[in-house]
Amino acid sequence: MSRTSLEHWQCSLARSADIVGDKWTLMILRDAFFGLSTFSQFQKNLQIARNVLSDRLDKLVQYGILRREPVRPGVERYRYQLTEAGQELFPVIVALTQWGDKWVFGAQGEPLVLVDREKGAPVQAVGLQARDGRYLRAADVTFVPGPNAPAELVARYARQRPPER
Amino acid sequence: MSRTSLEHWQCSLARSADIVGDKWTLMILRDAFFGLSTFSQFQKNLQIARNVLSDRLDKLVQYGILRREPVRPGVERYRYQLTEAGQELFPVIVALTQWGDKWVFGAQGEPLVLVDREKGAPVQAVGLQARDGRYLRAADVTFVPGPNAPAELVARYARQRPPER
Repeated sequence: MSRTSLEHWQCSLARSADIVGDKWTLMILRDAFFGLSTFSQFQKNLQIARNVLSDRLDKLVQYGILRREPVRPGVERYRYQLTEAGQELFPVIVALTQWGDKWVFGAQGEPLVLVDREKGAPVQAVGLQARDGRYLRAADVTFVPGPNAPAELVARYARQRPPER
Repeated sequence: MSRTSLEHWQCSLARSADIVGDKWTLMILRDAFFGLSTFSQFQKNLQIARNVLSDRLDKLVQYGILRREPVRPGVERYRYQLTEAGQELFPVIVALTQWGDKWVFGAQGEPLVLVDREKGAPVQAVGLQARDGRYLRAADVTFVPGPNAPAELVARYARQRPPER
């Protein structure tokens, strides 16, 4: 039997992937970071089917990533704003964008360059760093059970560690 | 008319989202970073339908994220290894995992903690930084056309800049 939802997994990536692991969801988030906020703005910019857009916006509201509120009090038109949880997906969107810059478009071929408003200079590549600032690749890290991990997970990690790399 | 593929977009996020914006693709990548490499290892660990797994693996090979090679020369069993392009998706996977740690499981509730093998200490949160090291949020950055952006894109950006935030 295969699973269709990842919501019962004791894995943060599974839960995040279940929520934002969808191409249209990522594009809606991109547009929200650009400042778009209404259904018609998203629909026009993404050329997305209305039922798909509606489904994805509802899901983003349900998971607390977008907040839906009337454009003006008493009006039945809504705008969708990023919550704090939504704002914190920015590194994910930028990391994906930078990966596409490098691996789809290639050096000097990136359509857009992300620049720091204060200095006008391109931003750094998003990367994983140790506390002392060293950049880390997958081979440089490992996982240990969290401070309140369920006993079952601790036992599984003691029994069956991820392969050393 | 709605679009079903994002492959003609002049946008790196659209292209990345088209390639890895799928929950099973993200889970397969997670497992590949953990060191899993064969069809049966992925299938057993993810409890994923075989046709879905096969489709996602083929796509990852086609896009140059995984490399498929015989387990041993002349054997018709294959293993899937991350290419350099695949390795560079690590910050995306970690950023999504850290988001889930914070916003799904909450403080001290993360199932697993990612630690630096060299020092044994938890890694930093993945974030976007300016060249001088300042952490940047969406409001702190803007986009400009890339060095070789097509004239059409440059004109669109001159005409219709993303809203100031």
